[in-house]
Amino acid sequence: MVNTCQSCESCEEGHENHCSKIIFAYNSHDRDGTITYGGYSDMVVVNERFVIRFPDGVPLDKGAPLLCAGITVYNPMKYHGLDEPGKHIGVVGLGGLGHVAVKFAKAFGMRVTVISTSPEKREEAMETLGADAFVVSSDANQMKAVKGTMHGILNTASASMSMYAYLALLKPQGKMILLGLPEKPLQISAFSLVTGGKTLAGSCMGSIRDTQEMMDFAAKHGLVADVELIGTEEVNEAMERLAKGEVRYRFVIDVGNTLSAASLASSPVPAL
Amino acid sequence: MVNTCQSCESCEEGHENHCSKIIFAYNSHDRDGTITYGGYSDMVVVNERFVIRFPDGVPLDKGAPLLCAGITVYNPMKYHGLDEPGKHIGVVGLGGLGHVAVKFAKAFGMRVTVISTSPEKREEAMETLGADAFVVSSDANQMKAVKGTMHGILNTASASMSMYAYLALLKPQGKMILLGLPEKPLQISAFSLVTGGKTLAGSCMGSIRDTQEMMDFAAKHGLVADVELIGTEEVNEAMERLAKGEVRYRFVIDVGNTLSAASLASSPVPAL
Repeated sequence: MVNTCQSCESCEEGHENHCSKIIFAYNSHDRDGTITYGGYSDMVVVNERFVIRFPDGVPLDKGAPLLCAGITVYNPMKYHGLDEPGKHIGVVGLGGLGHVAVKFAKAFGMRVTVISTSPEKREEAMETLGADAFVVSSDANQMKAVKGTMHGILNTASASMSMYAYLALLKPQGKMILLGLPEKPLQISAFSLVTGGKTLAGSCMGSIRDTQEMMDFAAKHGLVADVELIGTEEVNEAMERLAKGEVRYRFVIDVGNTLSAASLASSPVPAL
Repeated sequence: MVNTCQSCESCEEGHENHCSKIIFAYNSHDRDGTITYGGYSDMVVVNERFVIRFPDGVPLDKGAPLLCAGITVYNPMKYHGLDEPGKHIGVVGLGGLGHVAVKFAKAFGMRVTVISTSPEKREEAMETLGADAFVVSSDANQMKAVKGTMHGILNTASASMSMYAYLALLKPQGKMILLGLPEKPLQISAFSLVTGGKTLAGSCMGSIRDTQEMMDFAAKHGLVADVELIGTEEVNEAMERLAKGEVRYRFVIDVGNTLSAASLASSPVPAL
């Protein structure tokens, strides 16, 4: 986000991300009616309230996705008490959000189980990212083995899925946080939530204060996103690979080093 | 509840109501295999951990339903921070749970809006129970007028309903608590929860500690349930009226004064 009304209850309480007049960094209508282009620009002017100090020592390319994926997973972990050493957290889906969720959870000292539809992600999840366990969601025995063991689940999947099997993995008073946006409505049995007093919550970005806190925490723990750095001329190919899930785990466009080399007048801005 | 395992994590943390080996006060299998009869008895033996001190000055008949309906609404209000003066809470459904929810919310100093399918309950809600506002859920204009104004909603309805319209009544970071058990799965749009970082949670009874706290709070505030006292001989008629929603708001059976007069051997215990 690059601006909000700065006067509503959400803004005054420091939850700018919930302001109904929020202006997103890109593809959003600014107050003067122009479209925002965010990082797809050679310069950007932002109200000082919406500037984050990028900590020394964090590489720009690997740190950039933290400003979106990082805060998206960090915010609900802090807000819902899923940041305590020793607690057990499940991460559904190992993509752009999921891989940084594993890293933050490990930095908090938690036990992390990745739950995925793709058995081939086991090695990556456990050996590269440091998850403690890996469960294939279609394997009923594997799912049963972790039933009732999790304090929380970060659900990063945007495919529609049955919530029943996932809610069963939670301990009493456990919390499942939705970060993805499946197109179809979720089917939720009230019984799955009432029994055990469980919570299903959504989360969307975080406040500026929490985003700064997240960046400082990441810097302290040497935590960065896994990225593939590309030039502006590779954007179309990257979009195709993104749709096929062929990136581990975020593309970052090196605008500074490639935009000046391209013809600014003739290059359309990709609408991501 | 009359007993639990007393050794699992939930029991040790004082959340006996989430123990997987819970024995309910009635219609439950006790450890010796017999069926529990709860208050449908002339005597009952209970483990001392599961005894609540009934405060002096609270009438037995009007106080009895607090041990179920009272704790069912009190527990989520405390747990989810919906007990603070000045906050705005919605109560969906004005029945056995809903009417005590209004009373507890007012005792906490909150602003209370009752949301009901029945326009004829307006006077009762506002003049007798003290709600601040009343909204007919089928009236789109009335619903629109309270959109985005509530910190929380206690949903006591057990009929299936669209959650979309209710979640829209919440402020950002608002919480809807499900207390009823609709038979059909709820349809939830992830977007309704993710936007605004909202919570949908279930709740089921409360711990023994919280139940004692609730009873003491009720005694201090002169808070009781609205009941209709009946004798054991009126049980069948009461069940019929209950099914038609013809009671304001709980039947209480005066077992002590009528069970001894009946033939214990020939009276079947009603399975409520």
